[in-house]
Amino acid sequence: MPLAEKALISRICRSVGPAHGLVQGIGDDCAVLRILPGHEALVTTDFTLEGIHFRREWHPPEVVGRRCLTRGLSDIAAMGGTPIAAFLSLAVPPKLPQAWIDRFLRGLLDTARESKTVLAGGDTAQSPAGILADIIVLGSVPRGRAILRSGAKPGDSIFVTGTLGGAAAALSDFFAGKKPRPHDFPRHFAPVARIQIGKVLREKRLASSMIDLSDGLSTDLGHICDESKVGAEVVAAAIPRAQVGRKRAAVGLPAALHGGEDYELLFTASTRKHVPARIAGVPITRIGRITRQKRVVLIGEKGSRNELRPQGWEHFAKNPSLKS
Amino acid sequence: MPLAEKALISRICRSVGPAHGLVQGIGDDCAVLRILPGHEALVTTDFTLEGIHFRREWHPPEVVGRRCLTRGLSDIAAMGGTPIAAFLSLAVPPKLPQAWIDRFLRGLLDTARESKTVLAGGDTAQSPAGILADIIVLGSVPRGRAILRSGAKPGDSIFVTGTLGGAAAALSDFFAGKKPRPHDFPRHFAPVARIQIGKVLREKRLASSMIDLSDGLSTDLGHICDESKVGAEVVAAAIPRAQVGRKRAAVGLPAALHGGEDYELLFTASTRKHVPARIAGVPITRIGRITRQKRVVLIGEKGSRNELRPQGWEHFAKNPSLKS
Repeated sequence: MPLAEKALISRICRSVGPAHGLVQGIGDDCAVLRILPGHEALVTTDFTLEGIHFRREWHPPEVVGRRCLTRGLSDIAAMGGTPIAAFLSLAVPPKLPQAWIDRFLRGLLDTARESKTVLAGGDTAQSPAGILADIIVLGSVPRGRAILRSGAKPGDSIFVTGTLGGAAAALSDFFAGKKPRPHDFPRHFAPVARIQIGKVLREKRLASSMIDLSDGLSTDLGHICDESKVGAEVVAAAIPRAQVGRKRAAVGLPAALHGGEDYELLFTASTRKHVPARIAGVPITRIGRITRQKRVVLIGEKGSRNELRPQGWEHFAKNPSLKS
Repeated sequence: MPLAEKALISRICRSVGPAHGLVQGIGDDCAVLRILPGHEALVTTDFTLEGIHFRREWHPPEVVGRRCLTRGLSDIAAMGGTPIAAFLSLAVPPKLPQAWIDRFLRGLLDTARESKTVLAGGDTAQSPAGILADIIVLGSVPRGRAILRSGAKPGDSIFVTGTLGGAAAALSDFFAGKKPRPHDFPRHFAPVARIQIGKVLREKRLASSMIDLSDGLSTDLGHICDESKVGAEVVAAAIPRAQVGRKRAAVGLPAALHGGEDYELLFTASTRKHVPARIAGVPITRIGRITRQKRVVLIGEKGSRNELRPQGWEHFAKNPSLKS
């Protein structure tokens, strides 16, 4: 067991001090947490594995830490929930420089602070190969008010927050041997979970269903349709494409359709609801509607209709050359 | 992403059906869970990594699954809590036979069923090397009633459940090139978390502090002493040693003192309390007492007094030749 890492995490967790809802943090067999009366607990877990979700030569440790926690926070946002505490299981190879861990934790803790989430515990181990992290986020939501994937109804409008394809564009550049600058690809290097937007949608009862865009629009809209037992029509021209690189060029349609890890929210809303054009400063765009036919159709610029099949976002498993 | 594994876990989770406290299981961004009114949430995470915590050539998949979940359940037991739900993050190499995963999940789900814990979600990924599992267990405990490590008082008696050193003895045999039979080393191959005992101790307000023996008596008693700011005296002759192998021979003192992964409970109790000789059919043994001096002393057979230093249980990282 890497005692240095254990001691470091322990020190950091203690230094975080008492936080809302945290009765007992690191230093016992379990963390003890209080859920507000009338609320339900939300739990999500997400791996961040070297070689699969990041590469040490591509991603500064702070970026890995930030993306690691954001993956979990984004799942909480997608339920309309509020994050309370995070738990980090971290296994590192024996020879990993201490500085890497320090910087990784700095990125993770900055993200935790910004989202008012306390790092409340976890596990450490020696890794047989590569850096392995698993982030667990515990959140809460008023009883019966979590926004599920299963609530979309035929006729509902489909919305996305922000712009899509920005994270995939950075990856595409990496695979092409380029060195994308963090400043030019903020959604890849410094994604922010849309917690505030999720909360507003829940409080105003605007969304009938919601998911976060971690696997890409085509896959995640497929999940909404599967769970809601409906279909969808998406208008290609309406999809807000990220502008990336030095020239702030719009990403290609495939990146916006299939690129993952943007951590924007995809939600549906009844046409009787008034969905604002911006929430918490972020543009909200209508991209299509829910249909009765159980398939997802992409409506092209000239009115063409083609089935939009989920093109799984397989991280680094294969080259996702998504830029058109 | 290993879609076959994802589909399998999804199918299994759905087949588990509605469970106490589970509002929404797998199939959404988060699991949604209800904590009983007047209760607090408990959260624990534990890695199970190939080559560190198990070896494929030593441990049948069912055993790996059982031990994986037991690690988390034992932490809940050590707080006097009740497990509600487990979450499994599982990364496997692309070429792992499906049968291994099926059998691993069978062991894990049998253990879940026995402990009335529902597998409510998790994550799957492709592993860059070896099988990687992280188990998260969510439990609950009446408000303010979690049994912490920090409550031991000078004069309190120290107790352990069951017998110690049985798990380490099996490991020792493995390292010696022998093939320990599961039947002869139940605490290694089929450990059971002491949930019922933890609950009784909490309900009857018997324990002033508690921890589970995952790292070994010397290390875990050290944790109790550190957190409670006390010391301890342990009587070597009083330590209940596991009887293992075909001949049911008692393990050596070092295995009982330093061997990990027995998942028994170590707790302290005021001398004013009556601690029964058995709880839930398991023997409870007094092994020493808490002292004011902040060190742990081992009292030998002839009255010798030696400091008992924590000898970290470093799993398979090095040969823990613990049998004397």
